[in-house]
Amino acid sequence: MLRVAIVGATGYTGVELLRILLYHPQIRISVLTSRTYEGQPIDRVFAALRGQIDLVCQPLNFDTIAEQSDFVFTAVPHKTAMEIVPHFHNREKKVVDLSADFRFTDPAVYERWYEPHRCVNLLKKSAYGLPELHRDAIRTARIVGNPGCYPTGAVLGLGPLVKEKLVDLSHIVIDAKSGVSGAGRDPVLSTHYCEVNESLKAYKVLEHRHHPEIEQELNRLAQEPVRTVFVPHLIPMDRGILSTIYVNLKRPQDTEGLVDLYRRFYEGEFFVRVCPPGQYPNVSDVRGSNFCDIGLKVVQDQQRGVIVSAIDNLVKGASGQAVQNMNLMCGFPENMGLERTALFP
Amino acid sequence: MLRVAIVGATGYTGVELLRILLYHPQIRISVLTSRTYEGQPIDRVFAALRGQIDLVCQPLNFDTIAEQSDFVFTAVPHKTAMEIVPHFHNREKKVVDLSADFRFTDPAVYERWYEPHRCVNLLKKSAYGLPELHRDAIRTARIVGNPGCYPTGAVLGLGPLVKEKLVDLSHIVIDAKSGVSGAGRDPVLSTHYCEVNESLKAYKVLEHRHHPEIEQELNRLAQEPVRTVFVPHLIPMDRGILSTIYVNLKRPQDTEGLVDLYRRFYEGEFFVRVCPPGQYPNVSDVRGSNFCDIGLKVVQDQQRGVIVSAIDNLVKGASGQAVQNMNLMCGFPENMGLERTALFP
Amino acid sequence: MLRVAIVGATGYTGVELLRILLYHPQIRISVLTSRTYEGQPIDRVFAALRGQIDLVCQPLNFDTIAEQSDFVFTAVPHKTAMEIVPHFHNREKKVVDLSADFRFTDPAVYERWYEPHRCVNLLKKSAYGLPELHRDAIRTARIVGNPGCYPTGAVLGLGPLVKEKLVDLSHIVIDAKSGVSGAGRDPVLSTHYCEVNESLKAYKVLEHRHHPEIEQELNRLAQEPVRTVFVPHLIPMDRGILSTIYVNLKRPQDTEGLVDLYRRFYEGEFFVRVCPPGQYPNVSDVRGSNFCDIGLKVVQDQQRGVIVSAIDNLVKGASGQAVQNMNLMCGFPENMGLERTALFP
Amino acid sequence: MLRVAIVGATGYTGVELLRILLYHPQIRISVLTSRTYEGQPIDRVFAALRGQIDLVCQPLNFDTIAEQSDFVFTAVPHKTAMEIVPHFHNREKKVVDLSADFRFTDPAVYERWYEPHRCVNLLKKSAYGLPELHRDAIRTARIVGNPGCYPTGAVLGLGPLVKEKLVDLSHIVIDAKSGVSGAGRDPVLSTHYCEVNESLKAYKVLEHRHHPEIEQELNRLAQEPVRTVFVPHLIPMDRGILSTIYVNLKRPQDTEGLVDLYRRFYEGEFFVRVCPPGQYPNVSDVRGSNFCDIGLKVVQDQQRGVIVSAIDNLVKGASGQAVQNMNLMCGFPENMGLERTALFP
Repeated sequence: MLRVAIVGATGYTGVELLRILLYHPQIRISVLTSRTYEGQPIDRVFAALRGQIDLVCQPLNFDTIAEQSDFVFTAVPHKTAMEIVPHFHNREKKVVDLSADFRFTDPAVYERWYEPHRCVNLLKKSAYGLPELHRDAIRTARIVGNPGCYPTGAVLGLGPLVKEKLVDLSHIVIDAKSGVSGAGRDPVLSTHYCEVNESLKAYKVLEHRHHPEIEQELNRLAQEPVRTVFVPHLIPMDRGILSTIYVNLKRPQDTEGLVDLYRRFYEGEFFVRVCPPGQYPNVSDVRGSNFCDIGLKVVQDQQRGVIVSAIDNLVKGASGQAVQNMNLMCGFPENMGLERTALFP
Repeated sequence: MLRVAIVGATGYTGVELLRILLYHPQIRISVLTSRTYEGQPIDRVFAALRGQIDLVCQPLNFDTIAEQSDFVFTAVPHKTAMEIVPHFHNREKKVVDLSADFRFTDPAVYERWYEPHRCVNLLKKSAYGLPELHRDAIRTARIVGNPGCYPTGAVLGLGPLVKEKLVDLSHIVIDAKSGVSGAGRDPVLSTHYCEVNESLKAYKVLEHRHHPEIEQELNRLAQEPVRTVFVPHLIPMDRGILSTIYVNLKRPQDTEGLVDLYRRFYEGEFFVRVCPPGQYPNVSDVRGSNFCDIGLKVVQDQQRGVIVSAIDNLVKGASGQAVQNMNLMCGFPENMGLERTALFP
Repeated sequence: MLRVAIVGATGYTGVELLRILLYHPQIRISVLTSRTYEGQPIDRVFAALRGQIDLVCQPLNFDTIAEQSDFVFTAVPHKTAMEIVPHFHNREKKVVDLSADFRFTDPAVYERWYEPHRCVNLLKKSAYGLPELHRDAIRTARIVGNPGCYPTGAVLGLGPLVKEKLVDLSHIVIDAKSGVSGAGRDPVLSTHYCEVNESLKAYKVLEHRHHPEIEQELNRLAQEPVRTVFVPHLIPMDRGILSTIYVNLKRPQDTEGLVDLYRRFYEGEFFVRVCPPGQYPNVSDVRGSNFCDIGLKVVQDQQRGVIVSAIDNLVKGASGQAVQNMNLMCGFPENMGLERTALFP
Repeated sequence: MLRVAIVGATGYTGVELLRILLYHPQIRISVLTSRTYEGQPIDRVFAALRGQIDLVCQPLNFDTIAEQSDFVFTAVPHKTAMEIVPHFHNREKKVVDLSADFRFTDPAVYERWYEPHRCVNLLKKSAYGLPELHRDAIRTARIVGNPGCYPTGAVLGLGPLVKEKLVDLSHIVIDAKSGVSGAGRDPVLSTHYCEVNESLKAYKVLEHRHHPEIEQELNRLAQEPVRTVFVPHLIPMDRGILSTIYVNLKRPQDTEGLVDLYRRFYEGEFFVRVCPPGQYPNVSDVRGSNFCDIGLKVVQDQQRGVIVSAIDNLVKGASGQAVQNMNLMCGFPENMGLERTALFP
């Protein structure tokens, strides 16, 4: 049994890791840390866990964690992550980091959108944890930067078209819509119930930090610069990201052809489900699951395409994908512990 | 006091007309009709009206209605509307029709998206009821086709740019998001609570009947063909439409300049509020009100613009705009009965 | 025109006062204060007010406010209220205070549940602002303690039965359910969107501060001690309180008789609507309105009664009732500015 | 592998059975039936199942089902159930029926609340499927009547107190609050999104069919007549029932003592979790899980007790409990396939 530590267990990605890992047949959760809830049993922090786990939130002690665990998930804010991860790396632990600190291939891009990077040498060794595109690198990596939620939905939605350069790479619009759990568990006015419920808005219009991450991955796929317009929206629901993507096709296409292209591109991918022509995904069909559903439509005379992708931001957009990465890094079957059906309704 | 009839009073646009008209100082609601609830007091159908109105739902009798009222709102499905409206027109009543039947300037477009039009002569006499663009025509019209909810948000959002031809007219993307009341009050599976709540999907992708209505109005503004991609989404909330619109600017622009353009275009318009640079609208700020809020942003080096507009689909997108049209048709101050602040939270 | 100040304008009761007072025909809002948003235009704090009001949030200066206004609403937390209200009272301003500081007839009860009372002399002069029970006292009061939201729903629901002593006064159960806006606008974990949405819980079971307030009013009605069990619940919605009340009837009753009793008791009360037998209230029918709807049922052989009352916690449970009190204190028609229909859906 | 048929697979309890059974290690789903969706692949009916199951909805053919399956779940409306179940019973299949048709020990009670019972002989042989109270009977039963959702929450919440006769058995109040999925998947006005969202009401006040079912079980526990007042409420959320129960204690008790009593009563029960004193359950902590959480509080001087229980109406209140019953009837570990943690948030 792999002994697993979760550093930062009391945010939403932390509790989602717990939910998934508690029933993973090859691992045992051995340590949890939390600054805010230090000393408290985790099932007092999250009553959903009552009777399922008997661990107390620990302070962050690198030696203790290294001694008690073989694998570490860091589910802490960016900046904190790059201060912590090297300690585990130096103690020869494999790490999946859920923050932005190990996602960027170019430190300069990170520094433009975040802040000075203090751990560039490890950043260069880390793999970007989107298994459908970087499986081999993840398998051998010792640090994986787990992708952002928006990039996961957008990049999976655009992958085949950008890779094959079937679209105008300078005119891509990504209109993304996210549930509120993507904003984390810290109570702020913008996530206060009455401010979000029955509301709908665009936010950080063309200023979201996931934008350069999306473009990094599209650039890598195309092997040339890709320019996108990315506007995120906040939706009154707990979980889910729907990305509606608009492209100009370089050559005339029909919907069936495009669906075929996607099916071939994602052949053998357990977690990507391409909808038949005429069907489009709904976030409620992936809720609580690690699936990414994709639907497509072409308006032929305009040579325009619409791609819609749906994920659960806490699963495929965060903790589920993190476990998928752990499975790859540890030689477990990739979908172990992650096969479950979505909760509907 | 103008005596007003509401034909089809027991749908959501019907009850919204009641809510607004009950406190309009120049009118009196004199007749309500409903097929489904014939013979029932309206405050049994909508308990919200308890103690505020003492009318019983009548069957549809043209002579009775003509005798008891001076002005008629028809809030019935398309097709039914064009069967009914001529009877009121022939009895010299002014009519605002909330269906699609009197919105199209070209009957052929209507027939392509709906069905054979049985009342083309009146269609030609009717005005399209978007006062900010067609105020003069509405003032003298005897039949007004009240705009669809999506077209209201999209056309107000695009008006200045299309009118001034500042954007590439063949590359406009309209990603629209609507609350559930836009789907009406008939219970169907797609509006069942558990199918919508915590869900998010695109629907009628590039097949929505409001699409040709949007293009009709944009064509009229530009005086040349405008091509748009229009994808509506269903959002788990009662009211509101947010339209996020993506355009390619023909000439470099900055956000301030664009905001200025919109302020000038909508100068003196009580119901259009242009946000300062850096602010974007939220449907919760227009809930229950007749306002359309618009926010703008330019990404200069890409010469791309993003416009976001927000309306309450039942007010500015339906019944409020219908009353605004009635005010114009009857010589009342345009915002009479419609000045109220949104209900927040 | 009465010049009105709102001290604490940027909470939910503050913005609700603004929404109501902006269209009150006899008053003008002259001053707003806010600690948090000092110096900011109020329509930047609440974009819903865009274009409707041109005031900037002021710091709390008693002389300035006294000079610029004739009437003061204090919408601040308890404790702060009793520090502030005397300053306005001493400057001869009438005050409606929305906190708990002027609600209790017995300072000892206040001190048991809140803290030492620093203004007992004014507390004794103040009236409890539930007009349906204390209209005469309110008319002549210079300080009104505006009732809590739960007490408003519970006391109106129990009034006739307790006044007439038709029920066992030691066995009353009040199961109350509130929307989230009742918890205020400060972002805390318990009102974070994802913690409330799709959740349902009892809280402060038999420990809520509104409990002694409810019993004070029931005691006054009965002229003898009344004992209640009061359990509040948090419901995933913005507005509304539904109170389901269970009583043991002293003498056999039927539903019709009880409905009649309530109709007589509340005869002439504009804001209390008693449902016909077989109908029960829904908070969505009072949303945004100042109504309290009440439905009743008797199970005769058991001599048990169930009373259900519904209010909007921000209107009849707070700001609407505050305006109703102002109307009484200033000689305006009691329902002026408050007649409007609920927003449904 | 046990081959399992689901008759009526396309309602919410049907799809929830599918979600649970797909990952049950000892069974295989072999047949699905649906009248409405006959001939359609089940993953077209529920896109959440995409890629997880390859079955087509069949018409109801008793011989075929009997041939292809060893165990049958009937998830159909009452009345239909009693017409169907005998056919499977006669073909020697064990059945868990999720309707009301096999829940009542006294056919006369069923007939008073439902309609004439056509299958009284089998009703007499069936067991009431609440394992925590009737485990032995379920183990040997060949037909199990799966309990209603409200009875499950109420009876588990009251079990220890009624069994031990610690409360006044003629004065019990059950105030129950349910999510909307409890009303099923048929679209009707009362479950239309805009009618439920932001609403809150009591319904079927003292007229709900689950009331006699609750009293049957309480009578059996007490071995004497128990009288309850039961009022259900509809809550704007998908899943969950919270039952707040009010009792008069016969002898003084403290909260700790009561919590102890419950812990002893439910010792060894995997699916009942008794909260520590001061904690109360939240439906969001059992969402998607088979747990029933119970919290308790005593107000000693009044000798009154409050019990709060929370379940997911589709799991412990329906399909999860049905699988728990199947496990017992088939000799599998009772919590097989049901151990999973709730989905939070």
